Amino acid sequence: MPEEKKISMAVIRRLPRYFRYLQDLIKLDIKRISSRELSERMGITASQIRQDLNCFGGFGQQGYGYNVEFLFNEISKILGVDKRFSCVIIGAGNMGTALANYENFKKRGFDILAVFDVNPDKIGSKVNGIDILSMDSLEDFTKNNKVDIAMLTVPNRYVTEVAERVTSIGIKGIWNFSPLELRLENGAVVENVHLSDGLMVLGYRLRSMG
Amino acid sequence: MPEEKKISMAVIRRLPRYFRYLQDLIKLDIKRISSRELSERMGITASQIRQDLNCFGGFGQQGYGYNVEFLFNEISKILGVDKRFSCVIIGAGNMGTALANYENFKKRGFDILAVFDVNPDKIGSKVNGIDILSMDSLEDFTKNNKVDIAMLTVPNRYVTEVAERVTSIGIKGIWNFSPLELRLENGAVVENVHLSDGLMVLGYRLRSMG
Repeated sequence: MPEEKKISMAVIRRLPRYFRYLQDLIKLDIKRISSRELSERMGITASQIRQDLNCFGGFGQQGYGYNVEFLFNEISKILGVDKRFSCVIIGAGNMGTALANYENFKKRGFDILAVFDVNPDKIGSKVNGIDILSMDSLEDFTKNNKVDIAMLTVPNRYVTEVAERVTSIGIKGIWNFSPLELRLENGAVVENVHLSDGLMVLGYRLRSMG
Repeated sequence: MPEEKKISMAVIRRLPRYFRYLQDLIKLDIKRISSRELSERMGITASQIRQDLNCFGGFGQQGYGYNVEFLFNEISKILGVDKRFSCVIIGAGNMGTALANYENFKKRGFDILAVFDVNPDKIGSKVNGIDILSMDSLEDFTKNNKVDIAMLTVPNRYVTEVAERVTSIGIKGIWNFSPLELRLENGAVVENVHLSDGLMVLGYRLRSMG
């Protein structure tokens, strides 16, 4: 991870949650909120919230709390939700198809340009209006289209190979859906999706209910 | 969230990551590790790691670090990975099918008993050896099978209705894949999956690369 930034990754990883909760508050027409109230909604301690938000200049005011819209806008800027990213999905299986159909990505600034697969039965068709192209055409495609992110939904045994191929042609961001923890040495940025993590937390919470 | 436990949810949410990293270390035959080394691997500050692990009795020893296997076993116990949970998937679409095929859940103690759908073309078939049953048979199924968790992969507009139906028949845990933040008032435990969160973090990291 490049660490020239002073904001820790732990804080960055919480920002999308602030983003969502603040967006909810805006929809509910709530103008300001105390760290205590935000804490109760989000299940994060109030002191953690103050500490997190202080990283961005401490927008809270004593006795007033946080201006919801202002805070939302600042966090949006930090997260860069006004920026757009071009993405491709590698793998037109169930997960790849689910991602191509996921409606939230575009709203968050992530455009899916194409889906790539090796299966001749799938190549040439569309999913959610997006072309499924042959993996053989990936290199040509990225010559003609700037691609920021590859969403990898290929079988585990191909993940490393595909990740190396994808980053060797200049795609800098990898979103890896295989349970394999992918680490690349070539400067690309990898986010590994760990679906089981949330399920384990759910299991913990169920057991602690008694 | 029931909060009679003293371990904060923020710490609990990090446990699956510790679990994965420690498991990796065991595979690499690494017997002990300092909080500094673990910190570099995980991208969490060393002080955060010490603080987290202190919640469980502070297993680290000055000048020795942490015993990897012992720590892994303790965290496994806290997470209850030795316990098994019975799950059903509601929705045999792409995401539901992807989940039914996801190989990691069983390893983590989550057994998928059945998939439910309303589509007559799907009912009666199987996915990854798991029966796709009619939604009409859900109530009967849960009478005859103890179900702990429902994984909801239904279209957004049905999520609330399905969540209420599922919890009204005694399923206590909901794993919600719709981007809709589901909140239930009936004591059920909900974990909302927010796929976009990871993507937003990836976007942030790509932009900070310059």
